[in-house]
Amino acid sequence: MPAYSTNMRLKFPILALTLEIITIILFAVFVDYDDGKHGGHGAHNTTHHEEKKDPLTLYPMFQDVHVMIFIGFGFLMTFLKRYGFSSVGLNLLLAAFALQWGLIMQGLWHLDDGKIKVSIFKMINADFSTATVLISFGAVLGKTSPVQLLIMTILEITIFSINEHLVAEILEANDVGASMIIHAFGAYFGLAVARMLYRPALRNSHENDGSVYHSDLFAMIGTVFLWMFWPSFNSAIAESGTDQLMAVTNTYFSLAACVLSAYAVSSLVEHKGKLDMVHIQNATLAGGVAVGTCADMDIGPFGAMIIGFVAGIVSTLGFKFLTPILASNLGIQDTCGVHNLHGMPGILGGIAGIVAVGAALASSLGFALVGGTITGGWRDCHSLSFKKSTSHLNRQFSYFIKLCSLFYTMPAGKHIFNNTVNNFSICTGLIMKLPFWGQPPDQNCFDDSIYWEVPGEEEEEEGEESLAHGDQKAEA
Amino acid sequence: MPAYSTNMRLKFPILALTLEIITIILFAVFVDYDDGKHGGHGAHNTTHHEEKKDPLTLYPMFQDVHVMIFIGFGFLMTFLKRYGFSSVGLNLLLAAFALQWGLIMQGLWHLDDGKIKVSIFKMINADFSTATVLISFGAVLGKTSPVQLLIMTILEITIFSINEHLVAEILEANDVGASMIIHAFGAYFGLAVARMLYRPALRNSHENDGSVYHSDLFAMIGTVFLWMFWPSFNSAIAESGTDQLMAVTNTYFSLAACVLSAYAVSSLVEHKGKLDMVHIQNATLAGGVAVGTCADMDIGPFGAMIIGFVAGIVSTLGFKFLTPILASNLGIQDTCGVHNLHGMPGILGGIAGIVAVGAALASSLGFALVGGTITGGWRDCHSLSFKKSTSHLNRQFSYFIKLCSLFYTMPAGKHIFNNTVNNFSICTGLIMKLPFWGQPPDQNCFDDSIYWEVPGEEEEEEGEESLAHGDQKAEA
Amino acid sequence: MPAYSTNMRLKFPILALTLEIITIILFAVFVDYDDGKHGGHGAHNTTHHEEKKDPLTLYPMFQDVHVMIFIGFGFLMTFLKRYGFSSVGLNLLLAAFALQWGLIMQGLWHLDDGKIKVSIFKMINADFSTATVLISFGAVLGKTSPVQLLIMTILEITIFSINEHLVAEILEANDVGASMIIHAFGAYFGLAVARMLYRPALRNSHENDGSVYHSDLFAMIGTVFLWMFWPSFNSAIAESGTDQLMAVTNTYFSLAACVLSAYAVSSLVEHKGKLDMVHIQNATLAGGVAVGTCADMDIGPFGAMIIGFVAGIVSTLGFKFLTPILASNLGIQDTCGVHNLHGMPGILGGIAGIVAVGAALASSLGFALVGGTITGGWRDCHSLSFKKSTSHLNRQFSYFIKLCSLFYTMPAGKHIFNNTVNNFSICTGLIMKLPFWGQPPDQNCFDDSIYWEVPGEEEEEEGEESLAHGDQKAEA
Repeated sequence: MPAYSTNMRLKFPILALTLEIITIILFAVFVDYDDGKHGGHGAHNTTHHEEKKDPLTLYPMFQDVHVMIFIGFGFLMTFLKRYGFSSVGLNLLLAAFALQWGLIMQGLWHLDDGKIKVSIFKMINADFSTATVLISFGAVLGKTSPVQLLIMTILEITIFSINEHLVAEILEANDVGASMIIHAFGAYFGLAVARMLYRPALRNSHENDGSVYHSDLFAMIGTVFLWMFWPSFNSAIAESGTDQLMAVTNTYFSLAACVLSAYAVSSLVEHKGKLDMVHIQNATLAGGVAVGTCADMDIGPFGAMIIGFVAGIVSTLGFKFLTPILASNLGIQDTCGVHNLHGMPGILGGIAGIVAVGAALASSLGFALVGGTITGGWRDCHSLSFKKSTSHLNRQFSYFIKLCSLFYTMPAGKHIFNNTVNNFSICTGLIMKLPFWGQPPDQNCFDDSIYWEVPGEEEEEEGEESLAHGDQKAEA
Repeated sequence: MPAYSTNMRLKFPILALTLEIITIILFAVFVDYDDGKHGGHGAHNTTHHEEKKDPLTLYPMFQDVHVMIFIGFGFLMTFLKRYGFSSVGLNLLLAAFALQWGLIMQGLWHLDDGKIKVSIFKMINADFSTATVLISFGAVLGKTSPVQLLIMTILEITIFSINEHLVAEILEANDVGASMIIHAFGAYFGLAVARMLYRPALRNSHENDGSVYHSDLFAMIGTVFLWMFWPSFNSAIAESGTDQLMAVTNTYFSLAACVLSAYAVSSLVEHKGKLDMVHIQNATLAGGVAVGTCADMDIGPFGAMIIGFVAGIVSTLGFKFLTPILASNLGIQDTCGVHNLHGMPGILGGIAGIVAVGAALASSLGFALVGGTITGGWRDCHSLSFKKSTSHLNRQFSYFIKLCSLFYTMPAGKHIFNNTVNNFSICTGLIMKLPFWGQPPDQNCFDDSIYWEVPGEEEEEEGEESLAHGDQKAEA
Repeated sequence: MPAYSTNMRLKFPILALTLEIITIILFAVFVDYDDGKHGGHGAHNTTHHEEKKDPLTLYPMFQDVHVMIFIGFGFLMTFLKRYGFSSVGLNLLLAAFALQWGLIMQGLWHLDDGKIKVSIFKMINADFSTATVLISFGAVLGKTSPVQLLIMTILEITIFSINEHLVAEILEANDVGASMIIHAFGAYFGLAVARMLYRPALRNSHENDGSVYHSDLFAMIGTVFLWMFWPSFNSAIAESGTDQLMAVTNTYFSLAACVLSAYAVSSLVEHKGKLDMVHIQNATLAGGVAVGTCADMDIGPFGAMIIGFVAGIVSTLGFKFLTPILASNLGIQDTCGVHNLHGMPGILGGIAGIVAVGAALASSLGFALVGGTITGGWRDCHSLSFKKSTSHLNRQFSYFIKLCSLFYTMPAGKHIFNNTVNNFSICTGLIMKLPFWGQPPDQNCFDDSIYWEVPGEEEEEEGEESLAHGDQKAEA
């Protein structure tokens, strides 16, 4: 049964070219360079830098984020033995389109003289928006066509931009490293789509749904680049100065602690005590996700380490025990386990943010009442956080709002809950389920050769062929 | 027929050591550290930064370019199944020598108290000069010995430095991202050399002239790093501030648009609509080449996207249809297809530069005549470009000059045209053709084992050997 | 004989979790964010930058060093055919723990109000301290369990921090790129441990102690990233401004010269003149090690090139001739040849530092006596070095001290010499030799599968199994 309806020759080029032409037209109408003159809504147009600032100050951080998006996400997914071309190749395609679409969708909320003025700050946010799509891509990896994925990109980026605007601007919740807005959103969106695209035939593990030795090493390129540059991800849009340093430091230590707990639990849950590459490749990164929301808060380096430590445990346990349950009981086939790397740690990040703000408030109130310094287990939280927050009340307010914004985002992809964003992710899945987008048949899932020219495998495949010939000869 | 005359034991070490010793002596005589005191010819010693500037401001951009040269070019060429050691290894060798030689050759035109004063700016330019050699290396990949390649490096860098000086300093053409000076030059130089080294026996594809699954993934490391850091390549030597931001932004969007069109056309030209890794690895980068010349001009983000969009189409079509014609009809065996990635997009960049300057001039003249603002399709070009260019006339002059400088550089490697630079590239090819440089015999082309100790291939080769033994036993 | 005592299920998780929890407690007590207020001992709190400096100025350099530690060291060791998971995976584990432990151990010497205040500068130094462990890891690669390696990490980091404090603070020796303090220390520490863990059964090369084609390409990822970012390693903690530029420039040229000599000698020592990947992967980096000590001194670009040139020769010869002797005669089985990449070039760096300071002093004295400028072979050293050094005498003093500090550090791991540090490294080896840390049996050395879940090798292993089945069937 060769790729009967999976021929992309017309569908894919027409969709890709049309989307790009539309995007170019939108850019012609709406997008201009940043001339540095507009009154800034961005975190970096702060008042204490009156002199003309180099517009490329954030450029090194932007490049770190860029590497995470294109090398990090791309190679992280190359662990599948026969799906490396798609992993890194479609990652490039989707991200390249998503950053253009994201810049428009995000920018329309912040027009400046009717224009979206592109700065490095906006380019970082455009890269961020691609992350949601790439996380969702991980959930449906191997089971979707390029056409389906481009459709998901358009819809998810659009919904993300609306959700981000609501969460960040209207509710004024703090989420500098985007634990909730990006990671939890992307994960639950992807899981909802994966649920819609459920394939009963894949219940028993597909022969290609696994790794080989070198594909696992390629995946480690992605893991390590994500791990190293995560401090840039969590601090890139933080206010420059002490806040940004705190975001870097917290993420650095959270990730370091996360490695130890992920390795320990990976060894603990396997009966021979061996380490599992799936855990190492993914759960070591959960600390970066979980510390995202409170990365720029004064939680103390040890606070960040506790968050990372817990995230590493939760994520590894998720891979071991939860993923099989999701697949068998809920019909959610989560190829890369994004629920464990982005979903649960994202929620953990939201909770950590609430605890951090709550503790800071409690500490401040105690300070006001007692007039003394809180000592002991939880450190002196108010000194810096006072300076940081413009007002005490603002913080208190966002403390409550954060809870709401969390639950607003969290169910974004869950098919159980029912709210606006959630409906959108299910609709996206339904649209992608339409039978004419060239989705692969079950037996061709997790296989590059259905959408890519794949070279022969040297000796191996030739060997197979010659064996086949040998058989024929033998029969003859 | 084992490697009879390809033994490098004396030829290569003597050449490499001699070249390095000569270079060290030249450095002792001519090269000194930059003490920050000299009156700047560099774009970054601008007058509005009177206070002492950190000499490492450009360092992050330098490192991005460095990664492009050593990881980007090196791994891009690892797509060949048996030539990965040479691709990344000889890339390192040639680039390490070329940057030293390039620094001297470029620096001799800009002596300061009789010394070449090394700054990060000069190191970026030295890295740039290596790019020309690495592009030409791509054209002759698999068919040349390390000795031949070192000879090409010396000669090409020398000619490049003269050409660059003529184009940039005397003709005053603008080429910030070096579409013409580096990319078109390197491509046509390499093609001329490839023509001189034509091997009729390789007309029918060599068995090693292809990829395997994992070699294509290694090549994607090169592709993605080149793709990500290209904005740094095109903006590193732009004037800091708005111009540099524009160069970054334009390259970012040009590359993003290029990905969509390259993928679309790759699928369109294959009868089953499958994507071809050769196109993805290369044509997705054409947008970076093509936007080079006008990267720091006010072409608008959508203008950059149009350039990238067209470059992706042209480059992919070139790989599909032009490369076979060049090989069969003109005797140019272009291993990596540098004509499609650097040659044609480089020329496209030159044309785009002319159009951009022409449009800006037309807009300015219209502005002077009508006294109003041009509205409509082409955007308000004069506001920023006026500030940027020191004078109106200078722009107008360089508009014409650019045409000339383009055609001065373009035929640099073409065997049809006939000018000074062109003669040099043919001479280089003739010198490399001399029979005592240890070039590989036809049957050993595209094979590391002729110049490298290559480890056994685990089961596979052992398997072959045991099969061979088996055969013998069977016969016995 | 399956992994009888190598089951890590309890030993490893308990150790890892305990260490992390202890570390978190230490962080809670001792570690705080840098608020930018303390009087700086760091090189970057210089007086001529009175205005509030961006605390992230060093961040791009930190990220370069970070990439060297996690990608560079990690992938450099993936050259072994069956030990890639451990190389890059245990590298991540050890470095993640070492940077936390290193920050505490180094910080305890520089308490500020009873706290270690984390800045980017401190994070760079924490990353540096991990390098010593990763170098020693290279010496014992393939022959140790994760538990043994964690123990080595604790002990080595602790001893390193004491030694660094003695060398850098008490003796006031200069070692900006840490040729001696990190590279020679890590190498000789690792060699002492390797000596203690000597395995007679591995005298005849183990079948897994070698590379395959693609594992060598993975290793080149490590090599090239180390090579590119070494200028950041050697300059990250140099005084900003001219010194830092000098450190970058010297390292850049030393590495470039080193490539040429390493390639030349690699070809020269092989009877067919072929290049050896072991040399290319390692000896090309020796120039970065050797120029470390005097990287920020005014040795002239050509001086740096001479150092790199010599280092490339020494290192390659070491791999070819010395490593076998160490293994057979001294019982030091140095898996990665760290003696050739870090040991000897580190000592060379110490000597180069002495020569550089001595020459500068000689030149200054000559200047004072003659009142004229020294001309000729050695360049005018005093102009910049006078500004750099706070006083002439200080330099003269450190000139002698450097000799002592060199020999203090050098024998750190040598079993011949006998001093305090040396005793510690032998003790570390003895502790690691205790029989209950789960070390691999001889026949399972250099094999991931003893500590990792390793996926089947596609056709190959399946082929082997089916062959085995075939055999059984054949017998049946």
